[in-house]
Amino acid sequence: MIPIPAFQPPDFSAPHLAAAPAVRSGPAPADGVAPSGFHATSNHPEYVHLGGGRWVLAPESRMDALLVLKGEGVEVVEQRRVKKGDQVVLGRSENGEEGILVYCDGFGDRACDEAEKFAFRTRGTRETPFSRSYDELYRILRHDREEGYIVWVVGPAVAFDKDSRQAMQGLIESGYCQALLAGNALATHDLEAARFRTGLGQDIYTQALQPFGHCNHLDVINEVRLRGSIRRTIAELELSDGIIYACERCGVPYVLAGSIRDDGPLPEVITDVRQAQDAMREHARRATTVIALATQLHAIAFGNMVPSYRIMADGSVRPVFFYIVDMSEFSADKLANRGSAQARAILTNAQDFVVNLWHNLRPGAAIS
Amino acid sequence: MIPIPAFQPPDFSAPHLAAAPAVRSGPAPADGVAPSGFHATSNHPEYVHLGGGRWVLAPESRMDALLVLKGEGVEVVEQRRVKKGDQVVLGRSENGEEGILVYCDGFGDRACDEAEKFAFRTRGTRETPFSRSYDELYRILRHDREEGYIVWVVGPAVAFDKDSRQAMQGLIESGYCQALLAGNALATHDLEAARFRTGLGQDIYTQALQPFGHCNHLDVINEVRLRGSIRRTIAELELSDGIIYACERCGVPYVLAGSIRDDGPLPEVITDVRQAQDAMREHARRATTVIALATQLHAIAFGNMVPSYRIMADGSVRPVFFYIVDMSEFSADKLANRGSAQARAILTNAQDFVVNLWHNLRPGAAIS
Amino acid sequence: MIPIPAFQPPDFSAPHLAAAPAVRSGPAPADGVAPSGFHATSNHPEYVHLGGGRWVLAPESRMDALLVLKGEGVEVVEQRRVKKGDQVVLGRSENGEEGILVYCDGFGDRACDEAEKFAFRTRGTRETPFSRSYDELYRILRHDREEGYIVWVVGPAVAFDKDSRQAMQGLIESGYCQALLAGNALATHDLEAARFRTGLGQDIYTQALQPFGHCNHLDVINEVRLRGSIRRTIAELELSDGIIYACERCGVPYVLAGSIRDDGPLPEVITDVRQAQDAMREHARRATTVIALATQLHAIAFGNMVPSYRIMADGSVRPVFFYIVDMSEFSADKLANRGSAQARAILTNAQDFVVNLWHNLRPGAAIS
Amino acid sequence: MIPIPAFQPPDFSAPHLAAAPAVRSGPAPADGVAPSGFHATSNHPEYVHLGGGRWVLAPESRMDALLVLKGEGVEVVEQRRVKKGDQVVLGRSENGEEGILVYCDGFGDRACDEAEKFAFRTRGTRETPFSRSYDELYRILRHDREEGYIVWVVGPAVAFDKDSRQAMQGLIESGYCQALLAGNALATHDLEAARFRTGLGQDIYTQALQPFGHCNHLDVINEVRLRGSIRRTIAELELSDGIIYACERCGVPYVLAGSIRDDGPLPEVITDVRQAQDAMREHARRATTVIALATQLHAIAFGNMVPSYRIMADGSVRPVFFYIVDMSEFSADKLANRGSAQARAILTNAQDFVVNLWHNLRPGAAIS
Repeated sequence: MIPIPAFQPPDFSAPHLAAAPAVRSGPAPADGVAPSGFHATSNHPEYVHLGGGRWVLAPESRMDALLVLKGEGVEVVEQRRVKKGDQVVLGRSENGEEGILVYCDGFGDRACDEAEKFAFRTRGTRETPFSRSYDELYRILRHDREEGYIVWVVGPAVAFDKDSRQAMQGLIESGYCQALLAGNALATHDLEAARFRTGLGQDIYTQALQPFGHCNHLDVINEVRLRGSIRRTIAELELSDGIIYACERCGVPYVLAGSIRDDGPLPEVITDVRQAQDAMREHARRATTVIALATQLHAIAFGNMVPSYRIMADGSVRPVFFYIVDMSEFSADKLANRGSAQARAILTNAQDFVVNLWHNLRPGAAIS
Repeated sequence: MIPIPAFQPPDFSAPHLAAAPAVRSGPAPADGVAPSGFHATSNHPEYVHLGGGRWVLAPESRMDALLVLKGEGVEVVEQRRVKKGDQVVLGRSENGEEGILVYCDGFGDRACDEAEKFAFRTRGTRETPFSRSYDELYRILRHDREEGYIVWVVGPAVAFDKDSRQAMQGLIESGYCQALLAGNALATHDLEAARFRTGLGQDIYTQALQPFGHCNHLDVINEVRLRGSIRRTIAELELSDGIIYACERCGVPYVLAGSIRDDGPLPEVITDVRQAQDAMREHARRATTVIALATQLHAIAFGNMVPSYRIMADGSVRPVFFYIVDMSEFSADKLANRGSAQARAILTNAQDFVVNLWHNLRPGAAIS
Repeated sequence: MIPIPAFQPPDFSAPHLAAAPAVRSGPAPADGVAPSGFHATSNHPEYVHLGGGRWVLAPESRMDALLVLKGEGVEVVEQRRVKKGDQVVLGRSENGEEGILVYCDGFGDRACDEAEKFAFRTRGTRETPFSRSYDELYRILRHDREEGYIVWVVGPAVAFDKDSRQAMQGLIESGYCQALLAGNALATHDLEAARFRTGLGQDIYTQALQPFGHCNHLDVINEVRLRGSIRRTIAELELSDGIIYACERCGVPYVLAGSIRDDGPLPEVITDVRQAQDAMREHARRATTVIALATQLHAIAFGNMVPSYRIMADGSVRPVFFYIVDMSEFSADKLANRGSAQARAILTNAQDFVVNLWHNLRPGAAIS
Repeated sequence: MIPIPAFQPPDFSAPHLAAAPAVRSGPAPADGVAPSGFHATSNHPEYVHLGGGRWVLAPESRMDALLVLKGEGVEVVEQRRVKKGDQVVLGRSENGEEGILVYCDGFGDRACDEAEKFAFRTRGTRETPFSRSYDELYRILRHDREEGYIVWVVGPAVAFDKDSRQAMQGLIESGYCQALLAGNALATHDLEAARFRTGLGQDIYTQALQPFGHCNHLDVINEVRLRGSIRRTIAELELSDGIIYACERCGVPYVLAGSIRDDGPLPEVITDVRQAQDAMREHARRATTVIALATQLHAIAFGNMVPSYRIMADGSVRPVFFYIVDMSEFSADKLANRGSAQARAILTNAQDFVVNLWHNLRPGAAIS
């Protein structure tokens, strides 16, 4: 089965679109400030009518951004990056009547059959069957390893357990990760495991608390700070396994975004959150599949940046898949409540999730 | 590695035990009523001193029960089953001073090293590493399939998903289940899946809601009620897969305990909760390993019945392992707060859990 | 503001209803068994067409039941209570085409405006604002105390805390509870608190664990079993506060439904779950407002029994309000997934909830 | 009742302390790097032996920091702020044997009576009784309003609801808040409520979703960015209620720490997380009571900074109270697993919590 559905563009000859005016715009009054009545993007495909029947699809979109008219097209710009005088698209409608069309139906997967009045199980919970979600994800990942860009957004829990840490390493080394987004904690505890076999002082296999293990992560941070980089530390301490090790070995870029929870931090951590956002968005622009794993902060942050579609090099449009893996309905609901309603939730422990993936995707695995 | 630790009995020559008085008792004043000051059992090994240095270990114990002196020994009797005049052990101490010894140290796994004053990760959560818990469980199940008695306590979620339902069927058919305890819902939805491929009307693979699927479970119940038994229904409707099917095919006993949530119920459901408790306790007496899966009601009910040890036919004493698998810390904590503190929690989705088990225990699986 | 919206019946002169056939029926093939193709009720208002344009609204409805033609009308009968030969309504449609109309629009509160394509906060979570939910609930309770029938479905947590237990007592004594539905645990721990100031051995104010407090609830159960009734025990032990005390003092009926988790149980507990369901349904028939508090088992059980509307003595139709108060989104979602989609969730701790209610409803409280 | 327990210093004449060596130290090898074998602080009172029987209590302590010898005393310095050559205390023991004493028993509230072998309810959950926790908190807040320094750490949920937002405003205006720590979201949505009566586009009273309300928070951010400051925006837009308004009006300092989730952000947000940590630590040094409300990120971040004690101006030592209010056991457990084990959890909805506090602390409230 081909996992990537084809995109069906809107019919711009439909009367209400054929009659739509060109979009309006106004100049930004200052750097980082939008004109009143600005249009804020969603994460859906959005077209703007530049006049004369020329509708342009927003490239490299993201949620809550501005559309700026540039030359013959539009650019998607975060509010804080707009420059004084930029022509910002104005409007607060989405059906074309102001030249802005938010278009949700391109991938045909939201068939809105008339709902019955009475039905069970309309809400996704931990009791939702996930067999097909897994099977589809396996297919998508096999496809996107070759032709897409898979971004992992990973919380520290994955590094706290021996099997899940190994599985994540395997996935990276097998090409199932084109970029890794995380925080200081994931990197620190993964390196702690490489050095001491612990996570926050707890053995990642036996669960035993090591004597004075609460110093382990501080020791690791100190070792890296002493040497100035993770790469050099891995070499000099001869670390030889784990998630960060795999990224370094395979040349997979990783972004470590800072937060106020950080100890240290490691030298690679980007401590200014705007710079961290910029670095993350580089990967958001290229993402075709995102897996956000056991991290509410990073998952919501990246969910705000990733559009539901991507325009490929050949001009074709494909969906961007966004999976959130978490233990609580609240986390999945929260992501939906922040606008990332297309995210597919798999409610389970991140450890089991990556072990499952590795079992089904590792070299030699039977293909389901 | 041998998964079953040896039992080290108490040293009854220790001064405070050598000097202990014989236990006191008093007659039950009426059927189902204990005398004032009765001793209530824990789920730990408990010894009573019958005099003259003869200490007897409570057989077939359970939590919150009475000890009744009978002949040369003691019996463990639920309050509601005591008979007028039964000699019930009295006492509210646990260190031997009244002839009652609650003994927690027999299996040597609770080494109480002096704790550090400051440590991270002293509480089990979803971020606890579960790799070893799984590995130990695989070993225990392989052992107990031959020499023990594995009891599964299962909520309906396991039947709602194709892969987990198949995995559970496989585990039963491969001998990893000596008894299954559940409610009307598990059996109904498992049979619904066998008949319609749905759970509460939702396809167990695609998640699609079937038209008028909310009638499916009622149709199934009606079919079984019409025929008078699950066994006959399986035969006549030619059902050929699932959890209940596997139990029927392999002669694995199952207890369906009634609850006020039940539709129908199926004819096999025991609607009087005291009779259901009696039927469950038959299996509690024999259990060597318990896996309670995604059901708070049945897990706590059975947790109240299962001792932390069992006296085997040869007189040896071994621990009873009790695993609770649930998504929320609250469920695991609640079981601990009801006294089943020895229960080991694995915090994950029940679907992934049984799929994991099946992957590692199915015939031909590599042995870790 | 009048809190009870008026009911707008369907327009049976609409063409598709005017042309609808009379409903079909078939005889039950045995006691407790429905004929094939039976219609299963929802919790919405449902009309059946008896021919000649005579549409009858199902009285005393409940979810997942049968409609049985009796004389000039229909009765709503649980499958297990149907008698051989009863004429059971047949059909699997809900728009009138088989003479069955499921009608959701009577109370005008489900205005289905066209949804925007992109919106935040479409799902209810703990972050949903509950100020108005509370204010409406206060108004509804003041109204229904005089003209309705308020049913509380209560888990044991309410009795575990001093303030919430007092608040619940106050609400009962002030007339805000016409029936209380609970299990053995709520009654036991409430009486334990009256006798020992503990819940499962823990002081309900200081949180201190009493020495051998784990016997307290067993002692209480034993005292009641010795005397044969709660009423007599309250009198003889001179208990003078709490939830059950208030019910006894004020003549508020309570149903204690048995479960397999029960210790004892108390003599008043109905141990056969079918009988317990029957006793609960007596109150479901009369309920105008339901508050289900920190109990998944009883909340779902009662949610299955309560229709979304009630026909009052004067023939008028009003909504039945159903509030579920719980800590987890999962519990609220689970209730919705079992068909009680009209339930309004307030996600908070049951302790704070009842304290809030009491603060706003107690005599002398300012009326918001 | 006096809510603040007196501090009992250690007995340094005890043999193992009288015989303790002076603490060792070593120079930091580079800026931001500790020498090997450094001592990492806990959040408990810690004494170092400077020789000759002179033990010094670490001032202004925090978790995971270094102790640097300076003149006649020690300073508590984060690793990243240490300077090359600083003399850093070395050691990995806590009982004095290396001149370092971690001391947990000063406030007498951790009486370690011998635990019983079998007890219920040893773990705090949502079913724990919180009546006394509230009563104590009311007393502590009344005391610390006059003689302490109350720090609130607040997530956005408090601003999403009308009543809780008003309650929080009231607490600030009544002197129960000396500093407010939050993120961009809390401030943005509070200002959104002041301007539009919505939170993320949802009416904070009726729950209704406003047309294109998803733009509201962006509009608010834009208004503030246009004017350059919150203060000026409040004045020019004549905003007149809410949490930030109250802080501005009453001169209560607030720190808005940036995160990668931020839209905008508001000009006052500190986007470099190290600078944000520094700003937060200014308040950690002065805190006597902390209330962390519905925010995992900020709660853990601040929990890492706040010691369990404070040395007052007169040299006396008092405990620092740390309350975490959250819906999930996981959040409270996670804080404990990061070392803040003294934090007291109240598991409830933040909305009810602040409404409760305001009801009991507002001018004219009855004193419990």
